[in-house]
Amino acid sequence: MSEKPSKAILLLSCPDTTGIVARISHFIFERQGNIINLDQHVDTEDKMFFMRAEWSLENFTIPTKDLIEAFRPLGKEFKADWKIELVNSKKPKVAILVSKYSHCLQDLLWRKETGEIDCEFPVIISNHPDLQSLSQSHGIEYKVYPINKENKLSQEKQEIELLKKLNVDLIVLARYMQILTDQFIDEFPSKIINIHHSFLPAFIGSNPYKQAQDRGVKIIGATSHYATIDLDEGPIIQQDITRISHRDSLNDLVCKGRDLERIVLAKAVKLHLEHRILVNGRKTIIFED
Amino acid sequence: MSEKPSKAILLLSCPDTTGIVARISHFIFERQGNIINLDQHVDTEDKMFFMRAEWSLENFTIPTKDLIEAFRPLGKEFKADWKIELVNSKKPKVAILVSKYSHCLQDLLWRKETGEIDCEFPVIISNHPDLQSLSQSHGIEYKVYPINKENKLSQEKQEIELLKKLNVDLIVLARYMQILTDQFIDEFPSKIINIHHSFLPAFIGSNPYKQAQDRGVKIIGATSHYATIDLDEGPIIQQDITRISHRDSLNDLVCKGRDLERIVLAKAVKLHLEHRILVNGRKTIIFED
Amino acid sequence: MSEKPSKAILLLSCPDTTGIVARISHFIFERQGNIINLDQHVDTEDKMFFMRAEWSLENFTIPTKDLIEAFRPLGKEFKADWKIELVNSKKPKVAILVSKYSHCLQDLLWRKETGEIDCEFPVIISNHPDLQSLSQSHGIEYKVYPINKENKLSQEKQEIELLKKLNVDLIVLARYMQILTDQFIDEFPSKIINIHHSFLPAFIGSNPYKQAQDRGVKIIGATSHYATIDLDEGPIIQQDITRISHRDSLNDLVCKGRDLERIVLAKAVKLHLEHRILVNGRKTIIFED
Amino acid sequence: MSEKPSKAILLLSCPDTTGIVARISHFIFERQGNIINLDQHVDTEDKMFFMRAEWSLENFTIPTKDLIEAFRPLGKEFKADWKIELVNSKKPKVAILVSKYSHCLQDLLWRKETGEIDCEFPVIISNHPDLQSLSQSHGIEYKVYPINKENKLSQEKQEIELLKKLNVDLIVLARYMQILTDQFIDEFPSKIINIHHSFLPAFIGSNPYKQAQDRGVKIIGATSHYATIDLDEGPIIQQDITRISHRDSLNDLVCKGRDLERIVLAKAVKLHLEHRILVNGRKTIIFED
Repeated sequence: MSEKPSKAILLLSCPDTTGIVARISHFIFERQGNIINLDQHVDTEDKMFFMRAEWSLENFTIPTKDLIEAFRPLGKEFKADWKIELVNSKKPKVAILVSKYSHCLQDLLWRKETGEIDCEFPVIISNHPDLQSLSQSHGIEYKVYPINKENKLSQEKQEIELLKKLNVDLIVLARYMQILTDQFIDEFPSKIINIHHSFLPAFIGSNPYKQAQDRGVKIIGATSHYATIDLDEGPIIQQDITRISHRDSLNDLVCKGRDLERIVLAKAVKLHLEHRILVNGRKTIIFED
Repeated sequence: MSEKPSKAILLLSCPDTTGIVARISHFIFERQGNIINLDQHVDTEDKMFFMRAEWSLENFTIPTKDLIEAFRPLGKEFKADWKIELVNSKKPKVAILVSKYSHCLQDLLWRKETGEIDCEFPVIISNHPDLQSLSQSHGIEYKVYPINKENKLSQEKQEIELLKKLNVDLIVLARYMQILTDQFIDEFPSKIINIHHSFLPAFIGSNPYKQAQDRGVKIIGATSHYATIDLDEGPIIQQDITRISHRDSLNDLVCKGRDLERIVLAKAVKLHLEHRILVNGRKTIIFED
Repeated sequence: MSEKPSKAILLLSCPDTTGIVARISHFIFERQGNIINLDQHVDTEDKMFFMRAEWSLENFTIPTKDLIEAFRPLGKEFKADWKIELVNSKKPKVAILVSKYSHCLQDLLWRKETGEIDCEFPVIISNHPDLQSLSQSHGIEYKVYPINKENKLSQEKQEIELLKKLNVDLIVLARYMQILTDQFIDEFPSKIINIHHSFLPAFIGSNPYKQAQDRGVKIIGATSHYATIDLDEGPIIQQDITRISHRDSLNDLVCKGRDLERIVLAKAVKLHLEHRILVNGRKTIIFED
Repeated sequence: MSEKPSKAILLLSCPDTTGIVARISHFIFERQGNIINLDQHVDTEDKMFFMRAEWSLENFTIPTKDLIEAFRPLGKEFKADWKIELVNSKKPKVAILVSKYSHCLQDLLWRKETGEIDCEFPVIISNHPDLQSLSQSHGIEYKVYPINKENKLSQEKQEIELLKKLNVDLIVLARYMQILTDQFIDEFPSKIINIHHSFLPAFIGSNPYKQAQDRGVKIIGATSHYATIDLDEGPIIQQDITRISHRDSLNDLVCKGRDLERIVLAKAVKLHLEHRILVNGRKTIIFED
């Protein structure tokens, strides 16, 4: 049974005009909502307005089930894309896709345990059996779908079916070493987060650490982004870097990179689950806490 | 003659309650102001509300000279500390105090030239003649007030008089190597920005780089803060750091530190001039761009 | 049974004089050792010389068991403190002390699994039972010594006895929330590494995140250092920082800090195990890879 | 008249073999040189050895004018590329090429004044007259060679002639907005340092800040590198980055970038002048202080 939601979060984007903040904050205020956080951004080039508002429902005068209907006219008036999320009504469901590397998976599991990431992991999906015991030791179902050229589409179909049945809110590619087909990506727009182990757009594609070493860069990075059908071209959510030198072997880069990858991926997952990301074409607007 | 102001900026702090954002954004909206930026923060521990709103006056329906009076009832109702600044009506006036080191001064002069810092420098005050020609080559008056134990209070009095006559909006201690007396500091509350060449609260007082080297830290820093009567204890505005190693001599720390100092000081000056800082006791709230 | 050592590492400090590098590299060369890495540092203030040399033993002409004796005359001539470590002959033994927080422990266990840290963990010691199952799931003995004012000295004595019996090379305080007594620390000079969750020397003592929040700093840090009888005053090995803002609650600092702590502690452990640290009074010389 | 050199610096690269450090340090020792700094690196993939040695000539038993001849047999034996620089005998000569942006030029001038960069600037060359008064206020000759499609080769020829006549040790492209032709670059191999205002290899070519904004990256960077005939592909010397967000306008990126550019360029110039860089194909080995 679901808890009573404690807070509502509105994410909205629309053509810029006057009065949006006033009208929306009034909408909340006249129903006795207490705004905890309000952040907005105007893209002056595209003349677009973006907003995130978070308010307490403690004394809210309308039932939360009616909230979305109540807001609809305002959304329509501003020609807005919008959604309202109710916090604490139920935990979001996150599916993790992995291959053989454990560090990103382990990190996500650990952050869930500490409470830093607040969600459920209903399933871990892999093309390899390697991380089964790790997953099961955390009580999470581990499903293996081996992938080869012949079965890729059919295996993905099964995965999609499973993910839809589970009604997942987010899919995390935690160093999943398969390129998803368009059919998969199209099913979950702005719902798949990938970690790429380079400072994008540098070193797109495979073996970015090797590419970085060959180019002789002095800094390496990691990038979390929404997966789109253009590989490594999706909207960037978070990036971080670390210094390297001529002394670092390829293995040193891999080691240093692991620390980046897990932090950059976890941050993106957290931002998504807290409804802090608005996608604006191939860019993101991040309403940081 | 002053230009017509293009934007208004409200900085406000008050006890937290419901409806502040709604009421204030409505105040702006009903006068046809277009909000460019609105940022707020609730200190849940102190139950205080902080807000910065920036709006265009292009189609504003009341004369800007009446704006402050018009807002007064709302400010009173919320028991708020508040001020409204009109942008572009006139450039803010910034006095710089220096001793012998030129790097922070030079950096501020350079940033003014590029337009990054938008203000006037009506005077540069020093206890030494060393930076006179640099100041004058930028066409800025340079006043020398030599300081010793005996004349400190009387010299400071003259400086205060001058600064009050010039009606300065901000005083920047750009590596000014004298400790200001309480009489000076009390005249300009939250209007004096100092740069301390350490990562405060580590290494308070003199020779922080020497202290850092003696302690064997692996990172040094710089801190810009509002000057208060407790030395190096004022509200921190900005901090930054850089890595050092056992190979760095004291002179290396001084060199590396200079780059930190000028960036950290310039950032604080910019934040202040853009009305992005609210002081909350011994802390600051920074509404970053 | 122990493997044949593949490399030797010399760590040496002595009064500075001419010819040390020439004489020592000649010592290695005339025995057919191939230098893989040589790093040195002169402290010009203290007129001290520090050196780390790492060479391959593949074609070494004297048995490794005689190496230390062979070097002794040279060490004596330079009045040096020195030690020679044989790599791969046996894995170093590292004891971990914990209380209730799991993140640093988990991180060390994970890095051992990936091969990033190359050692044995013969025992995990705690004053609480909380991390028993985590330890045991990695097949490591977990010993609980509950500590109170009355039993502290006697419990510590048992711990010391155990650690000496196990002949550990390093003791890691992985957020161990007890202050060790002098008797404990004196037993293991430069062999105990602690993680302090602040940017030392700022915020010495308890609750550094609370101290940081109260002071309103814009950056928090973590520091790994050798434990000495002066609390939080031991030679610093590694530091790192992350940015915070007025929006961060105390819990946010704790979360952000955890990522710093585990990275900064792991790095120090790795540097120690690779014999890259020389202690110079209250400072360290780090011969980075 | 030139001062007596106080130190010698050897930079050497050769196929890896045993005994190089021993033989070279012995060469220095037997002539009573005191090694101040010795750093080496083995590229295990290419089986190449790289070394930098710095020693005091105070008690050196052979005249410095004979030093290079004395070392020649050793260099030949190891089939090495090598050079020996005598410090303090004369200041290195650095020519700066600029267009209209002043920040990198101003920064280099300022660092020379503080003594951080130890060199002479015999000439500043530009394709525009804009920075003439800045250059002349520092007493440096400013030569304008306007460039268009037709005259590029002939103008460059005059520049090359001038630079050769002046016998410059280094050419710094301080935001010089012309692409040098191959004829120019070939004249000064590993002697031309460029600053590119992106985190290479991301955003090669023109308008990297615009490219960065269009891609929606969360971090921007700057890269200093030796110019080669492949544009923006030369060996990287130094890189640094800063965070940006969706709030940053293109102008904000330019402002933030300027601080990166001047620090990253100055660092590269300093490393070059201190003979700390060895070029290894398209990579650099940096023997950091």
